[in-house]
Amino acid sequence: MKYKRSERLVYMTQYLISKPNQLVPLTLFVERFNQAKSSISEDIRIIKDVFENDGIGNVQTTAGAGGGVTFHPKINIDRADEIVERFMGVLNAQDRLLPGGYLYMSDIMGDPVMMNDIGELITTMYGDEEIDAVVTVATKGISLANAVARKLNVPVAVIRKDNKVTEGSTVSVNYVSGSTRKIETMVLSKRTLKENSKVLVVDDFLRAGGSITGVIHLMEEFNAAVVGVSVLVEAKQVENRRFKDYTSLLKVSEIDEYNQSFLVEQGNCLEYIKNKSNKD
Amino acid sequence: MKYKRSERLVYMTQYLISKPNQLVPLTLFVERFNQAKSSISEDIRIIKDVFENDGIGNVQTTAGAGGGVTFHPKINIDRADEIVERFMGVLNAQDRLLPGGYLYMSDIMGDPVMMNDIGELITTMYGDEEIDAVVTVATKGISLANAVARKLNVPVAVIRKDNKVTEGSTVSVNYVSGSTRKIETMVLSKRTLKENSKVLVVDDFLRAGGSITGVIHLMEEFNAAVVGVSVLVEAKQVENRRFKDYTSLLKVSEIDEYNQSFLVEQGNCLEYIKNKSNKD
Repeated sequence: MKYKRSERLVYMTQYLISKPNQLVPLTLFVERFNQAKSSISEDIRIIKDVFENDGIGNVQTTAGAGGGVTFHPKINIDRADEIVERFMGVLNAQDRLLPGGYLYMSDIMGDPVMMNDIGELITTMYGDEEIDAVVTVATKGISLANAVARKLNVPVAVIRKDNKVTEGSTVSVNYVSGSTRKIETMVLSKRTLKENSKVLVVDDFLRAGGSITGVIHLMEEFNAAVVGVSVLVEAKQVENRRFKDYTSLLKVSEIDEYNQSFLVEQGNCLEYIKNKSNKD
Repeated sequence: MKYKRSERLVYMTQYLISKPNQLVPLTLFVERFNQAKSSISEDIRIIKDVFENDGIGNVQTTAGAGGGVTFHPKINIDRADEIVERFMGVLNAQDRLLPGGYLYMSDIMGDPVMMNDIGELITTMYGDEEIDAVVTVATKGISLANAVARKLNVPVAVIRKDNKVTEGSTVSVNYVSGSTRKIETMVLSKRTLKENSKVLVVDDFLRAGGSITGVIHLMEEFNAAVVGVSVLVEAKQVENRRFKDYTSLLKVSEIDEYNQSFLVEQGNCLEYIKNKSNKD
């Protein structure tokens, strides 16, 4: 059977989109469509141009026997700005303010479109780094970690605050919860993360930073290198954080329980993307 | 600027793939490419043929003013079989057996490719039902719920076993853990799930069924209708489950801690898909 270019383009586009950050050998398409490598390469060039012109991602082709094509999701700054603005609009609702000045965000973490978009944004920030795993803390960080890991095509390691029998042998560290000042424990299954991994840490909310500091200590136990820390929302005023280098989508400040009000501003993620694209 | 059909096809394909179960108005493409509706419809027809011939999904077009195109992910039986077989190969490793006869699965839940594929498989089973939300129990079910919700394009509601301040007001039920016979509590934030929702319940492991039974009771508190229950792995021997109707990808039996052995077989999900496609 003979395939038209139009049919090949549709198939190859959906194939690449569904396999981000994964080397796809050209021979796979050559055999599937029994076409000359030259015309498959021409198909790829068309896909590459559209993906790059429309800020969908980069399409990297590597020559030679083991050669092939890799799709790297990478959105442009307009799209990133759009995502942050939409997120801000959703977060900016009075009734999110809970007793104790906490923000209700479970609906956002449970929104697959929002998580997917934010996953693309965080992947755009860190996609050029060498990353072996995305690490997060149960429970709310998991949906974000999944969205990012899906785009980076790396596994997720979930740190728990309880030690479950289904985790096998674990490594644990104690940490001081920045907000409650209580001593708490976090554990990670030994099998979940390989020694000497390079990890990206993501979480939903950054307050005093106690739990992220705990994660960083736990990563030391695994001899893991933390290549980045990215959070959806950070509380602005907080000063004495034990780590400086992180990105956030939004900043929340002036939380006033009495008047049920708080201020939402952009975090530093858009600057981070701009600076990166200037370097490229 | 004028776009070639090839460029339109690449763009429209990635757009539809990234927005499953979502009505995309044709006018969006008509305006973006400033093309006659007729040629956009012709583009859609090409995409539809490839998607349906290659078992990627159905492309549904609705006519009229509010008309448009919707991509429904739906894999074919060969692809489904491939996914179940791969999952079986991964699960079938001696060293997964933990003290107490539990199976270590966190690496599988943290594998984004595996979760994405299984998400497509479960969506293929239940995608024709009317579903408002995917419900699961923290912690391990969350990755699966995200993968399914992403394909169904509905929110995820995560039931927790602890009551967190960040959840706002919650509804809770007690249940008897089938395996430990202990009385436990599960809670769901009132805001996370709308009253009278139609929900699909997913979880990683089904033992005696105590926690799924708890979920079903909790859903009653929300006047929610459970349209289906789907689990990755079920323990085979268990008899007296309080609910009959569910699908599983794999069945585990003859768990022998002493000899570090257990038996893995296919669950009923492939039959379920075959029966469904016969009905269609």
